[in-house]
Amino acid sequence: MGLIHHPVVDKNDQTIAAAVTNLDLHDIARAARTYGVSRFYVVTPLEDQQELVRSIVNHWVSGAGATYNPDRRAALEIIELQPNLTDVLAAIEKSECQKPLTVVTSARMERSDLNYEGLRELGARGDRPLLMLFGTAWGLAADVIEAADYRLAPIEGWGSYNHLSVRSAVSIILDRLRGNMST
Amino acid sequence: MGLIHHPVVDKNDQTIAAAVTNLDLHDIARAARTYGVSRFYVVTPLEDQQELVRSIVNHWVSGAGATYNPDRRAALEIIELQPNLTDVLAAIEKSECQKPLTVVTSARMERSDLNYEGLRELGARGDRPLLMLFGTAWGLAADVIEAADYRLAPIEGWGSYNHLSVRSAVSIILDRLRGNMST
Repeated sequence: MGLIHHPVVDKNDQTIAAAVTNLDLHDIARAARTYGVSRFYVVTPLEDQQELVRSIVNHWVSGAGATYNPDRRAALEIIELQPNLTDVLAAIEKSECQKPLTVVTSARMERSDLNYEGLRELGARGDRPLLMLFGTAWGLAADVIEAADYRLAPIEGWGSYNHLSVRSAVSIILDRLRGNMST
Repeated sequence: MGLIHHPVVDKNDQTIAAAVTNLDLHDIARAARTYGVSRFYVVTPLEDQQELVRSIVNHWVSGAGATYNPDRRAALEIIELQPNLTDVLAAIEKSECQKPLTVVTSARMERSDLNYEGLRELGARGDRPLLMLFGTAWGLAADVIEAADYRLAPIEGWGSYNHLSVRSAVSIILDRLRGNMST
């Protein structure tokens, strides 16, 4: 899966590069690790933000944090920093020997073409690697959404309010994809 | 639902009072609001931490944040600060005219007596108010777990690793309780 910091939109629907949030890395890596995601790509073109990601990951994977909390290390070591989506796709194609199917998510998805049953089927089929993309700020830019193979239906809760954090949305979507609901 | 900061345990299983995390309030209030939770009790006996909760909530409910982001206001206004679990139970009994059924959660629950199907049934029955309790730090203290009406099964992911943040766990459990999975 990938967490995109550019291109995403702000509250006025303008394309921006969002800042990296420390807890996004921790919460999403922990959820990804819990649900067996093999790689969590953190995508930002900004060099100072890349430096921030490196320093957080290094602290927990090889620095003092790794000794203090080995569980956190096991989560953060699946993080891979990439400058843009093209490079993510190339990295997956190189390691998996085929292009991934891309699934994009957005709370404001206008035309979705994949529901959660379909997502579970895609995940279970496993003939091609699956890359799920999440946007920070107010969500993925329109061109990323249009270019993807599938557009996942927004999460529906218990009414019309739908303003989950990206950390919550990732957790819920991974659980719907792979959670063991029978317990 | 309630987020308990005391009594919870640390990594050595000692009972502590945990510090309040700003993003817990935001992420959990947003998830609670999305899934139609009527009240989100933030429970801490520490006065400086109570002051922190008040200042965060005031900023977003009646301060500058309310104008900047009305959606965030709608989430944070369901927060109610309480010093301890006894006072939470009393507040619910007063507003709902009956005692709530309590459901506790823990990633390390040893003897659970409620699965997710059972939780959905409890939620759907609705004859008594339901109070779900989540612990910060390394989870709820043993006496809180033993005193509850129900102990929910831990979330199972895709293997043995299970170290979700409380923000992720709340989101997933609310989705399992009330999410519309058919979309």
